[in-house]
Amino acid sequence: MSEECTENPERIKIDTSLIEARNKMNLKELVHPKEDENSTLLILNQKIDIPKPLFYKIWKLHDLKVCADGAANRLYDYLNDDESIRTKYLPDYIIGDLDSLSEKIFNYYRKNKVIIIKQTTQYSTDFTKCVNLISLHFNSPKFRASISNENNIQSNHGIELEKGIHTLYNSMTESLVFSKVTPISLLALGGIGGRFDQTIHSITQLYTLSENASYFKLCYMTPTDLIFLVNKNGTLIEYDPHFRNTCVGNCGLLPIGEPTVINETRGLKWDVKNWATSVVNGRVSSSNRFVGENCCYINTKHDIILNVEIFVDKLIDFL
Amino acid sequence: MSEECTENPERIKIDTSLIEARNKMNLKELVHPKEDENSTLLILNQKIDIPKPLFYKIWKLHDLKVCADGAANRLYDYLNDDESIRTKYLPDYIIGDLDSLSEKIFNYYRKNKVIIIKQTTQYSTDFTKCVNLISLHFNSPKFRASISNENNIQSNHGIELEKGIHTLYNSMTESLVFSKVTPISLLALGGIGGRFDQTIHSITQLYTLSENASYFKLCYMTPTDLIFLVNKNGTLIEYDPHFRNTCVGNCGLLPIGEPTVINETRGLKWDVKNWATSVVNGRVSSSNRFVGENCCYINTKHDIILNVEIFVDKLIDFL
Repeated sequence: MSEECTENPERIKIDTSLIEARNKMNLKELVHPKEDENSTLLILNQKIDIPKPLFYKIWKLHDLKVCADGAANRLYDYLNDDESIRTKYLPDYIIGDLDSLSEKIFNYYRKNKVIIIKQTTQYSTDFTKCVNLISLHFNSPKFRASISNENNIQSNHGIELEKGIHTLYNSMTESLVFSKVTPISLLALGGIGGRFDQTIHSITQLYTLSENASYFKLCYMTPTDLIFLVNKNGTLIEYDPHFRNTCVGNCGLLPIGEPTVINETRGLKWDVKNWATSVVNGRVSSSNRFVGENCCYINTKHDIILNVEIFVDKLIDFL
Repeated sequence: MSEECTENPERIKIDTSLIEARNKMNLKELVHPKEDENSTLLILNQKIDIPKPLFYKIWKLHDLKVCADGAANRLYDYLNDDESIRTKYLPDYIIGDLDSLSEKIFNYYRKNKVIIIKQTTQYSTDFTKCVNLISLHFNSPKFRASISNENNIQSNHGIELEKGIHTLYNSMTESLVFSKVTPISLLALGGIGGRFDQTIHSITQLYTLSENASYFKLCYMTPTDLIFLVNKNGTLIEYDPHFRNTCVGNCGLLPIGEPTVINETRGLKWDVKNWATSVVNGRVSSSNRFVGENCCYINTKHDIILNVEIFVDKLIDFL
């Protein structure tokens, strides 16, 4: 089949009755999780750089808040207004090897009863430690009971110091039926835009979670973008037209992991069919945008990364 | 052959007589070009975010300075100290569709005799317009004579408005013998870390230039990293031990374009042999570092992206 590329008008109607979408998602739900899902705000160790009203709102919209190691320093510094603000935004967990957590801030959060878990293994990243912890929190009532037992505080909350979280997680997953697990909406701040190998490591996590723990719906938020994985074989991305018109800018379909084929898109400014895409060959659909009135359909041969430019100063009016 | 991974001490000696390196490069020369090369500082449209003394030094070390469209606004705003500073740091060229260049700043640079070239085509990016221009500048004496002719200022310096630069470049390359072209060291600021599809577009350019105009040696500089392409089949990266100890932090070998195999590394903290690497499978050598005393050898099956963490506040002492 031959390649096609069509330039569309700025807004077009998409007839969804003609589309057989294997996956559906809603753009706004990446930051405003649905009531029937578990949700977590994950803060990674990079300066927090979104407007405070938006940060506070996103915080409230998520059930669980987790700081990866030195991210607790970043949270503490970000909330530098006054003490009363800081005590309103206490994370549920801080986890990592704790090498980068300052003593003052460790003591502050410990005093305020935040659960701080030390995990020394260098064979997994802070991100993986967080993700295993989050899954245990939502899926193991036994873990939750044990971790919140105040008698365990001095013994690392009862968690073996090197890699206890991974051991508990691996043991739990043996009996976990993934298809029955309540989805976990996971919004991560600070994964993209710092040291470049850490940015790419964050991208690998989109693929890894989709493969190994698909009940997680991971999205990175930066001051400019939402970045997430679009599953292969047809995904319909829906949005409210007013939300799209106000908060959303450009987008890019990014074959970061491997070259692939975009079988079909409907609702992009530059729609394509049977279009081979590859970072190596320089054929990447960047600086594109959604022109479907209320949805856009993307069908690729392999999973692909999508970034959607988001105007963070406008977003709060829609949350 | 089976995979191997070795954890090395913090500094080791590399016996280069045992290494057959097809390519050699020096880490510092990415920012401090050699005398016998042509060199260009390319500023892309993102806030300039490195210390001013370093910026001034890098400016002086490069023969040619080019701003991609709105990058001229960024340069103007960055040099906000006083008028006398600003007139010392005038780029040689500004090129783009000029939609994002403010009128005030257009007039300022025009008045100061900067060559401003409008190119309206939307079928190439500002980056490509810049690269074609830079090659013409160094490789076509006829082009240089024509472009600096003051009689041509009102007629877009004699360049056809839509895509004249590309036409001239394509015509020049017909008679260009690539192997005889003097290498062009190209250091780009602002390509990485902004909107994520633009970051990935910048990465595609590392592959594209290596394939289509290999006399360019492109490196991106961010506030945290140098990012460049390491050619396949064996590259020796050399550095002064004191430079490495002072200015260089972590590194990552990033198979962004496609999965590949790291045949061998010598001189990394975690050296590998016959190691399959892939963003999709989550097997990426990130948070690694150079431990070879004065060099590191990397041999991969395909070209690969390397990021090297650089301490920008220390770098100036070595330039």
